[in-house]
Amino acid sequence: MRSGRHFLQIPGPTNTPERILRAMHRSVIDHRGPEFAELGLGLLRDLKPVFQTEGRVVIYPASGSGAWEAALVNVLQPGDQVLMYETGQFSTLWKNMATKLGYDPIFIAGDWRRGVDANLIADALAKDTDHKIKAVCVVHNDTATGITSDIGAVRAAIDGAAHPALMMVDTISSLGSIDFKTDAWGVDVVVAGSQKGLMLPPGLSFNAISEKAWAACQAGGDRRSYWDWRDMMTPNDAGYFPYTPATTLLYGLREALDMLAGEGLEQVFARHERHASATRAAVESWGFEILALNPDERSNSLTAVLMPDGQGGDALRAEILDGFDMSLGTGLNKVADKIFRIGHLGDFNDLMLMGTLSGVEMGMIRAGVPHQSGGAQSALKYLADHRI
Amino acid sequence: MRSGRHFLQIPGPTNTPERILRAMHRSVIDHRGPEFAELGLGLLRDLKPVFQTEGRVVIYPASGSGAWEAALVNVLQPGDQVLMYETGQFSTLWKNMATKLGYDPIFIAGDWRRGVDANLIADALAKDTDHKIKAVCVVHNDTATGITSDIGAVRAAIDGAAHPALMMVDTISSLGSIDFKTDAWGVDVVVAGSQKGLMLPPGLSFNAISEKAWAACQAGGDRRSYWDWRDMMTPNDAGYFPYTPATTLLYGLREALDMLAGEGLEQVFARHERHASATRAAVESWGFEILALNPDERSNSLTAVLMPDGQGGDALRAEILDGFDMSLGTGLNKVADKIFRIGHLGDFNDLMLMGTLSGVEMGMIRAGVPHQSGGAQSALKYLADHRI
Amino acid sequence: MRSGRHFLQIPGPTNTPERILRAMHRSVIDHRGPEFAELGLGLLRDLKPVFQTEGRVVIYPASGSGAWEAALVNVLQPGDQVLMYETGQFSTLWKNMATKLGYDPIFIAGDWRRGVDANLIADALAKDTDHKIKAVCVVHNDTATGITSDIGAVRAAIDGAAHPALMMVDTISSLGSIDFKTDAWGVDVVVAGSQKGLMLPPGLSFNAISEKAWAACQAGGDRRSYWDWRDMMTPNDAGYFPYTPATTLLYGLREALDMLAGEGLEQVFARHERHASATRAAVESWGFEILALNPDERSNSLTAVLMPDGQGGDALRAEILDGFDMSLGTGLNKVADKIFRIGHLGDFNDLMLMGTLSGVEMGMIRAGVPHQSGGAQSALKYLADHRI
Amino acid sequence: MRSGRHFLQIPGPTNTPERILRAMHRSVIDHRGPEFAELGLGLLRDLKPVFQTEGRVVIYPASGSGAWEAALVNVLQPGDQVLMYETGQFSTLWKNMATKLGYDPIFIAGDWRRGVDANLIADALAKDTDHKIKAVCVVHNDTATGITSDIGAVRAAIDGAAHPALMMVDTISSLGSIDFKTDAWGVDVVVAGSQKGLMLPPGLSFNAISEKAWAACQAGGDRRSYWDWRDMMTPNDAGYFPYTPATTLLYGLREALDMLAGEGLEQVFARHERHASATRAAVESWGFEILALNPDERSNSLTAVLMPDGQGGDALRAEILDGFDMSLGTGLNKVADKIFRIGHLGDFNDLMLMGTLSGVEMGMIRAGVPHQSGGAQSALKYLADHRI
Repeated sequence: MRSGRHFLQIPGPTNTPERILRAMHRSVIDHRGPEFAELGLGLLRDLKPVFQTEGRVVIYPASGSGAWEAALVNVLQPGDQVLMYETGQFSTLWKNMATKLGYDPIFIAGDWRRGVDANLIADALAKDTDHKIKAVCVVHNDTATGITSDIGAVRAAIDGAAHPALMMVDTISSLGSIDFKTDAWGVDVVVAGSQKGLMLPPGLSFNAISEKAWAACQAGGDRRSYWDWRDMMTPNDAGYFPYTPATTLLYGLREALDMLAGEGLEQVFARHERHASATRAAVESWGFEILALNPDERSNSLTAVLMPDGQGGDALRAEILDGFDMSLGTGLNKVADKIFRIGHLGDFNDLMLMGTLSGVEMGMIRAGVPHQSGGAQSALKYLADHRI
Repeated sequence: MRSGRHFLQIPGPTNTPERILRAMHRSVIDHRGPEFAELGLGLLRDLKPVFQTEGRVVIYPASGSGAWEAALVNVLQPGDQVLMYETGQFSTLWKNMATKLGYDPIFIAGDWRRGVDANLIADALAKDTDHKIKAVCVVHNDTATGITSDIGAVRAAIDGAAHPALMMVDTISSLGSIDFKTDAWGVDVVVAGSQKGLMLPPGLSFNAISEKAWAACQAGGDRRSYWDWRDMMTPNDAGYFPYTPATTLLYGLREALDMLAGEGLEQVFARHERHASATRAAVESWGFEILALNPDERSNSLTAVLMPDGQGGDALRAEILDGFDMSLGTGLNKVADKIFRIGHLGDFNDLMLMGTLSGVEMGMIRAGVPHQSGGAQSALKYLADHRI
Repeated sequence: MRSGRHFLQIPGPTNTPERILRAMHRSVIDHRGPEFAELGLGLLRDLKPVFQTEGRVVIYPASGSGAWEAALVNVLQPGDQVLMYETGQFSTLWKNMATKLGYDPIFIAGDWRRGVDANLIADALAKDTDHKIKAVCVVHNDTATGITSDIGAVRAAIDGAAHPALMMVDTISSLGSIDFKTDAWGVDVVVAGSQKGLMLPPGLSFNAISEKAWAACQAGGDRRSYWDWRDMMTPNDAGYFPYTPATTLLYGLREALDMLAGEGLEQVFARHERHASATRAAVESWGFEILALNPDERSNSLTAVLMPDGQGGDALRAEILDGFDMSLGTGLNKVADKIFRIGHLGDFNDLMLMGTLSGVEMGMIRAGVPHQSGGAQSALKYLADHRI
Repeated sequence: MRSGRHFLQIPGPTNTPERILRAMHRSVIDHRGPEFAELGLGLLRDLKPVFQTEGRVVIYPASGSGAWEAALVNVLQPGDQVLMYETGQFSTLWKNMATKLGYDPIFIAGDWRRGVDANLIADALAKDTDHKIKAVCVVHNDTATGITSDIGAVRAAIDGAAHPALMMVDTISSLGSIDFKTDAWGVDVVVAGSQKGLMLPPGLSFNAISEKAWAACQAGGDRRSYWDWRDMMTPNDAGYFPYTPATTLLYGLREALDMLAGEGLEQVFARHERHASATRAAVESWGFEILALNPDERSNSLTAVLMPDGQGGDALRAEILDGFDMSLGTGLNKVADKIFRIGHLGDFNDLMLMGTLSGVEMGMIRAGVPHQSGGAQSALKYLADHRI
């Protein structure tokens, strides 16, 4: 029995807004009936501005991992080379998936502290003179490291190499939180999920699809059924889906899209930037290091904080969960126990952030983690001084 | 603006009980934290009695179609023959999926009015002396035709042929409604979904897995990632999942399992049988024909009703939706417009059934569909005379 | 563990629509803040058309009984005579309350099978030459007997007698179900509650107040505080209340008013009339007698059905609750065990009514209550033949 | 469109826990049926330990003001003297109500900065040699001033004077937050509401009743109906109520009682004390004065903070609401605009408190209210240093 609200400050799933939970509390309707068609058409239409695309967006009743798989199997053929880039655990997992699915990933190694170096992409593409590489896959915001890569630079690298590879980007922890321009950046396949900036519970994921990717899908792709974009198109045009959709999550999506439109995407991005800046001010005050070395690459949706030598991140997280009922993100794989991650994305505001950062600081005190006090206070000052 | 509750009498998704919607109206928790582990372990444990198995059950954040795909890709290799059986649209769709995924289905043709003839299975297996057929796939209860096949007889046919093929069964519209004995019938892979007898919204699906299927999965199977049973096992043992689960649907599943256990599976099956019998009494009184020719194969979860010559099922359905705010199932593919389907499964009771059948009869009157009046009255008598 | 939805067919509280429960599932806001003011002003404005008045409407966080008390104490002084009329248990209870509160009710006796005879009111007022009678109090629709009285005739009687008494009317089970014209009928104080035609859970009640009643309140009335209309007016003008309002019920009221406006009051009344007519057709078919002798006085929100000699209504109700999970209204006081009451008001539709009437007929069969079968079938025909 | 959760930090209604909103999201049941009886009996039984009484507790579908009125009218007769004590706006309002209802309050004046001086009670009672004073009425925790009075001392004063007056105490903002011992302190009538420590939305209120008060009620009391304890007793014994109860709020009450029992009352009180102490540490750090002069009388459920000279509390509150989406309590009556009030009661935890206090400090910065920075930081230290 804990009193008060749990603070779910992992970098997603995020705190589900009351409005969205309420919208989902509704009886299921006939997914083949006229009322559903209206819902479906509206969703497919209103998702586009969130992706900043005029192209196709498809919705899967699946986790984000499903949308990764969909991106690959719709355009690749077994043995196809894909150029992927290590920015953290999630780019690693996507690479592992590509391997399991029978593709041939070229994985540009990273140190988990820097984003995509577009020059290395350019180099790799330049070497690929016979265009064996069919796709370049990067993670816009790696949730494991809090590193945001420059997608426009990746676009420029591909264009500079005059390489025909498709460009695929995972925006699972950036869409609806950090500016992402599908069309302007020429992204061919976008991978997104419901449970981060879209503020929904997990269970839906998305692909946005360029004309080039759609052509590739029609011309080829792998053996596929559940993920097949082609099966989506005709029913989607009428507001329906080829198999039973996750209706209650779609009710929530309707509400989420209305909320994002109501606040305005520009305002949403500015809000995330402001909370991230305040968080970084706190981390600096504590005397801790942010995992992302390059200030331009520090994520606006989460902050990964390096523990001092000899201090385990998981012990701190456990103390904070036990003492203050807040969940923080753990360090994964190469940074296991070396970092903890603070999610500051989704349906969030200044006072929730202050509760969050205060909880981190109180946890450090209780856990005996050496730090300079006053981090929360620094964030407070930042927020008070920076009106939005 | 319609007054009162919509009657969702398609054969699934079914009317979601208030208890389940309420259980789902809860903030998402950390899917890597200790509270989640307790939830996950409980679900994985308590699903087993619903499947009547001691074996493994896996949960996908996906529609039922995903669990079809999972069943195939975990054990089959490209080009593998699978023996499938046409009992309606859903067996047809599963066959189409097998083709798309690169397997080689042998499809025993049916007329959509009869269930699986186990002799034909036996014959096909007997001919397959070099055991090219790797799996026999049947649909326990074809949702498009309301035909329930004898799965024990299929088991006997396989055993009689001493054939090593795996036996896979789709129970999407029977699990939790019609007795299904995974272990007793030696089913190797069960395919199930959340939105029928389990009373949940759509968005979850399931495989139950025998030791034999598990061995096949480990020894081979296709290229796969999202659906890979192997990735599930280690996290599942601790109550977790390999990727983000659909947490709110899992809350609903917890409630659904408690409800089924509270009522008792035997009682649940008896209730469905009773409502189906009352529905069949109504159909006979109206002078209509049930699509399923064999009384033993008439489904207890839905009833497909043949329209009289010259009368379209879809016009009747539209009249009923417009006039009485009830959704019925349409005729699909070979029986398009020739039938309508009444769902009487899930969270249902006598008075809901009487509202449903009265709505059908009133719709016939309004639509000018010739019939003998008194079908609802016959069902009323049946229900009053047959205590459960 | 009962499967399916309970049928709550008492004549109120009524089946709460999902929309209203959802609207109430919202965090409480500051009842002194600007967001609340907007809510409050909208409610106080939009209640008026439901009461068909241009006058004041006040909202109490209280049951309907509270609004009875409020009506009396705001305008009466101890010892004041009030002319009241026995149409059933609820008029009796209001009379008892008047006595307890120190007023002097003259109670015109009734036999619980007829509504108000306006001639008797006229006679009583004619005799009251020195105008000791300060108020005439009648129940528009007595929930205990299913009798609807002619309020226009009462108005005419008062006017005919040129008597200055205030006219007070209880519309608890008629407002939002049966046409009630506060201003056109010159009603000075209306008493209403949330849990019937307004479709809300219980917990709110209302007074509509004419100018004449408001003048009486300001000039006199009894000692009072919680119920004092005077304390309401200034805060109400700004959208607030003098003490903490029942915020979540007000959220529900917002939704209810939107639902009634969306359907249209005329349509709402026609729907209730249609369902009542179908119910009466069923009762006649069963060979049962309706308690209300005068067809013009038969309620459109509930039907009180007389049991045959030697048959107890409560045994039948218990059988129906036990066997079919439906709650019906009991017989109260003078008609205890002699009747049962079917509520057919609020958020209701044809199929819910057919479930209801089928449940009554099945209950009669099970309980061994002699009846002619086919009542539900008669209602079915009525509904099919009478489009709205 | 505000992002994130509103902080409702008025001293009630408090932040409604998700569990309670969820419990209330349930269809209404028959308030005369067997399922209701079980609910009612459980509530009436389990309220007693919360009041720390073995006596009667009654539940009203009404605001707290209704329970004030009920306390008076059940035992007093017109003209009866009641000794009341000014500790803030709510004691003043209760006094005003007593006057309106025709009783004769003797109001011991206070300066709104100190609690009840039991000596003054003793003096007044000593002078009342012919026992005209029928009741002593005090507010345990005056919500307008954040002052908690010593109820045991009042008991001692009455006993010391050997005076037969009943002792009535308002615990609206203390019950379930600050230790209150109905029986041990010999309180005859307790007045409580749902929307503070009980964590429910407003709409229910309570009286706890001693044997002495019950005897007074039966022997006398005023004209009354809605509030009459006598009408409650027989139905309550069976789990029912004399008129329609506010069923959905009762569902919420069931959950609230389970939550309080789950946490344990001692733990609940300690939690409130700890949050109040941290808040006071913040106020001191800011260099502000707490309205309550006597440290022993500083409330554990709210803190009233004096503004510096020349600074208006309402401008600060408006800035905080606008800039940080938090509602704080206003200054009422004698302290209008001179104070603001921070509610830290109900379903609350450390991180919510840190968000709250950070919001106050950020508001001061934005509003240009002179203060010493670091108040939130002081609270943080307090919380980190004081494990519960």
